[in-house]
Amino acid sequence: MVRICALSGGRQAGKPLAEVFTSVAALDLPPLVNIDDVDFHGLDAVFCCLPHAAGQKTVASLPDRVKVIDLSADFRLRDTGVYEKWYGVHQAPTLQETAIYGLVEWYRADIARARLVANPGCYPTSALLALMPLLAAGVIDPSAIIIDAKSGVSGAGRTLRESSLAAEVQEGMTAYGIGGHRHLPEIEQGCSDAVGQPVQVTFTPHLVPMNRGILSTIYVALKDTGVSAGDIHDLLSRRYADEPFVIVLPPGQVAATRAVRGSNACHLSVHADSRAGRAVIVSAIDNLVKGASGQAVQNMNLLFGFNEAAGLSAVGMFP
Amino acid sequence: MVRICALSGGRQAGKPLAEVFTSVAALDLPPLVNIDDVDFHGLDAVFCCLPHAAGQKTVASLPDRVKVIDLSADFRLRDTGVYEKWYGVHQAPTLQETAIYGLVEWYRADIARARLVANPGCYPTSALLALMPLLAAGVIDPSAIIIDAKSGVSGAGRTLRESSLAAEVQEGMTAYGIGGHRHLPEIEQGCSDAVGQPVQVTFTPHLVPMNRGILSTIYVALKDTGVSAGDIHDLLSRRYADEPFVIVLPPGQVAATRAVRGSNACHLSVHADSRAGRAVIVSAIDNLVKGASGQAVQNMNLLFGFNEAAGLSAVGMFP
Amino acid sequence: MVRICALSGGRQAGKPLAEVFTSVAALDLPPLVNIDDVDFHGLDAVFCCLPHAAGQKTVASLPDRVKVIDLSADFRLRDTGVYEKWYGVHQAPTLQETAIYGLVEWYRADIARARLVANPGCYPTSALLALMPLLAAGVIDPSAIIIDAKSGVSGAGRTLRESSLAAEVQEGMTAYGIGGHRHLPEIEQGCSDAVGQPVQVTFTPHLVPMNRGILSTIYVALKDTGVSAGDIHDLLSRRYADEPFVIVLPPGQVAATRAVRGSNACHLSVHADSRAGRAVIVSAIDNLVKGASGQAVQNMNLLFGFNEAAGLSAVGMFP
Amino acid sequence: MVRICALSGGRQAGKPLAEVFTSVAALDLPPLVNIDDVDFHGLDAVFCCLPHAAGQKTVASLPDRVKVIDLSADFRLRDTGVYEKWYGVHQAPTLQETAIYGLVEWYRADIARARLVANPGCYPTSALLALMPLLAAGVIDPSAIIIDAKSGVSGAGRTLRESSLAAEVQEGMTAYGIGGHRHLPEIEQGCSDAVGQPVQVTFTPHLVPMNRGILSTIYVALKDTGVSAGDIHDLLSRRYADEPFVIVLPPGQVAATRAVRGSNACHLSVHADSRAGRAVIVSAIDNLVKGASGQAVQNMNLLFGFNEAAGLSAVGMFP
Repeated sequence: MVRICALSGGRQAGKPLAEVFTSVAALDLPPLVNIDDVDFHGLDAVFCCLPHAAGQKTVASLPDRVKVIDLSADFRLRDTGVYEKWYGVHQAPTLQETAIYGLVEWYRADIARARLVANPGCYPTSALLALMPLLAAGVIDPSAIIIDAKSGVSGAGRTLRESSLAAEVQEGMTAYGIGGHRHLPEIEQGCSDAVGQPVQVTFTPHLVPMNRGILSTIYVALKDTGVSAGDIHDLLSRRYADEPFVIVLPPGQVAATRAVRGSNACHLSVHADSRAGRAVIVSAIDNLVKGASGQAVQNMNLLFGFNEAAGLSAVGMFP
Repeated sequence: MVRICALSGGRQAGKPLAEVFTSVAALDLPPLVNIDDVDFHGLDAVFCCLPHAAGQKTVASLPDRVKVIDLSADFRLRDTGVYEKWYGVHQAPTLQETAIYGLVEWYRADIARARLVANPGCYPTSALLALMPLLAAGVIDPSAIIIDAKSGVSGAGRTLRESSLAAEVQEGMTAYGIGGHRHLPEIEQGCSDAVGQPVQVTFTPHLVPMNRGILSTIYVALKDTGVSAGDIHDLLSRRYADEPFVIVLPPGQVAATRAVRGSNACHLSVHADSRAGRAVIVSAIDNLVKGASGQAVQNMNLLFGFNEAAGLSAVGMFP
Repeated sequence: MVRICALSGGRQAGKPLAEVFTSVAALDLPPLVNIDDVDFHGLDAVFCCLPHAAGQKTVASLPDRVKVIDLSADFRLRDTGVYEKWYGVHQAPTLQETAIYGLVEWYRADIARARLVANPGCYPTSALLALMPLLAAGVIDPSAIIIDAKSGVSGAGRTLRESSLAAEVQEGMTAYGIGGHRHLPEIEQGCSDAVGQPVQVTFTPHLVPMNRGILSTIYVALKDTGVSAGDIHDLLSRRYADEPFVIVLPPGQVAATRAVRGSNACHLSVHADSRAGRAVIVSAIDNLVKGASGQAVQNMNLLFGFNEAAGLSAVGMFP
Repeated sequence: MVRICALSGGRQAGKPLAEVFTSVAALDLPPLVNIDDVDFHGLDAVFCCLPHAAGQKTVASLPDRVKVIDLSADFRLRDTGVYEKWYGVHQAPTLQETAIYGLVEWYRADIARARLVANPGCYPTSALLALMPLLAAGVIDPSAIIIDAKSGVSGAGRTLRESSLAAEVQEGMTAYGIGGHRHLPEIEQGCSDAVGQPVQVTFTPHLVPMNRGILSTIYVALKDTGVSAGDIHDLLSRRYADEPFVIVLPPGQVAATRAVRGSNACHLSVHADSRAGRAVIVSAIDNLVKGASGQAVQNMNLLFGFNEAAGLSAVGMFP
């Protein structure tokens, strides 16, 4: 059984959580406190949801017995040089190098033995679940991957930015961070892991007028003219046949964010391109569940030997 | 424990449910069959979700041992004359008169003993939970009630209508059915039950560019100048103190549909009007949960002596 | 002919307007400058769009020959005491008392002779166009008016507020400022003008997940049982028959914001209530056009003797 | 001067247009009539907006003096074999072969002399304005083009389809027609025209929860390592410097549908890819204006020697 012992909050410290999120009004939860007022010694697990860099020292100072699932980008990149290039100097480089990347379907054994798990980013989760099996099997050209990803606005968090205002977002669409989004090195690290050599991809994120969901449309070149989109579909289906949270849709269906809204599922669909020798894969997740807190719970379950799906039974909420 | 033994569907019969709603792809469910192919004899309970009139004969023909939760309007109105005026001649008038109205917080004892429960409409649920305590306590004028209600588009179902098309709905707002919506007599029946005499209300539904949620803004005249909005707040708070699904928000907060999205909760907030002697109550529900299937599960739990909140633990999904 | 000679901007001063609003990229416009760098002496007219209080001294310091259309709340309330209660001490009280309220359809003659026009608020425009003819004709009870108004999020401007973030607004609805919104005294001032005695109304604004549009649902009690909703419809139709921007819809149609989006039109529809002796009026405007800049241009046209509809020919953009 | 002499409608014939689209309530327009009741002899121009195939015989039967702008797909594909493959047998093949493709910026001289103009599709307009200059200049690899396009739901028209219902569209996103959308051959025809040899592209359309707008994210491989994204930007800027409706945004800005909403503009932005030798171009149009009726008016202006921008002065409506 899991019990929530403490909840910390910055500018909201001192309030009940129900005042910040009225939706939890009926739950019996501890009040929000300043992070310095949390006694970490009695705890078994900590979910760390601070902005990148802000939690590095906190994580480093936690008692050894506490297992940590970190939801920031701080511990996702194994290479300190790459981290520094995209985020600046790391304050806990040793932890960074030993943290385990929490994409459960690919690093399950390591996670089960870990003390510090870096919960994957939302875009990387949607892209890597589609790409890693194909790269590992050697059926696609690692130098010709294009990921055109579309995200709801909750991916930007609750920070006050003009670009996150409703009147800027509703009834419109745009791209951002083209060629330079911080999730790019994380996607490339996973791809490189799968294929065993450095991989560079093209990644373009877009902002869609919806709250939740990421849809990644992924263009791949088949390595061998003997491989078809149907073969790609079979390969993904076999790879994920026993995974509770990755569903490869039957041919003819297309992955859609509405089908995974509020659930920890990732839906994948495979499509023949109009040009010979290519395929299109569509990957849909809820960026706040499989792309964040749901995957974090899945990681906790794994860390403590619980049923991996405990607490994650919600199916997609449609409409 | 509850097991789903059969799922019926009209034009979708023959398909797995996962083909109609991809969100349930991971669940192990029986396929959709034609309603005539369902063997009702082994069942304990039936949720009947047919359009009004379409299910009257089916319900009448069910074996006696089967308990029924009907989600249509067919059994909500006790008065056959009122039903006929709004919907046409009823084909099972005896059942209609003996069915119990499934607003659990007000008809709990009767529901527990019932065989046929009429699950309340979405607008009536949101309005009656706010109004019935005030009418029962005699603190508001029953002849001066105005309910200005706003609904997401899922309230219209999946029927193909021009007014339900995305391009008609998104980025716009309008009212409909002014003075003549079919939920009007149902609201008036509940209000009349509470006060013990016939009540007429003003009710205006609106269509809002969102999928889920009903927000009812209710204007009441306080009967006695000694009664304040604060007293109304206290009265509602006391009435619902032990109810798991009705939350009276603290003064200063305003009920919002986003806080109840996907949950079986009804949030109520009370506000002083700018004019003396009046108050405004805001009531928020998810029209598909507390306003439909969630309340239906709550009724089933009550019919079978289960924990009333079983299967209904989801909190509001925000954002 | 109208020529734009100067554009001022606060934090955006120094940029071309096209950098702030890419939509004007093709227009030849002067760059944004600091307001202190504008030479007002050569100008004929100034549109002042500063936050309330911020522009009072600027307006007071303008050369006499300059005509001013002020879009803030600063000059809308004639009574300095009422202004002070809602906004604080006014710094140009003499101007405040002599400014003309720019609701063209009701104050046309005064506006034509004015030097300073206070452009009406968005909510008051939608409510007063519906209510003033009925109050002036004495057919409704001035003490029983309820205005339930719904607005798109652009009404909140581009200020960074958590409540204006897309993830807070999309797919949800709530009320705000119940009983105490600053547009309340402005609505009451117009109602009082029409009836010739102080009027108090009930006014509840709501935030709707759309960018533009205000829909006001207005509940009125007919003074005399001989008056019907049909009579109300006739009265409004006659009153606005020659007005280019106020359309009274034929019976059976309902005013909708989508029909006025981007246009300077106000659509009104009249409906019988379910209770005898009452009627419901629905009023729809685009809050940024008839509720702000469009009405401001209409006022300018009137101030300078231009065709009142010049520059305002756009019809509603649907979808 | 242009005068609208007749408006035809199918199921809506007999009604005033204002009953179908309340937004035009203030315009003085002829009523909708059955197409067979239109006297085409007195007309100079016809805009034909019938579904594909439905208008072929009508267009063929029009008097010779009538110039036609056809908004269906019927006359866009020059090759009768390609048309037949995607749409079926054409009933007016001679007209099909002689019709001029109405992408003004590329076929202006031919359009000016034409009698029948095929107004381009929405997706092709957004893609071809970006791609044709690059293909014509020979700076990109014609065999490596990927167009990931996102459209608002108005692209699907007002037909009643489950996939166009608001509850299916809002708060979600998906792809459709992958590898086989009917706009694919039209895009390929334009690309082939530009480069002078057959071109095959990858094209994936998506449905976005908004009413209007197409955003095409286009991935190109630079032919020569000496060409940079900056060179692409310069090339597009020079090509469209004198075009009133194509705006190449300054480096650092990203094309967004909100900036072109309601206007006839196409916004293009150019971005360096993270991989050497590639670039990303973002193209934004309003699918109902530059992608349909606006471009149709532009074609009419050209056909009759009017100012090409007449009637098309609206800038993007934001928000």
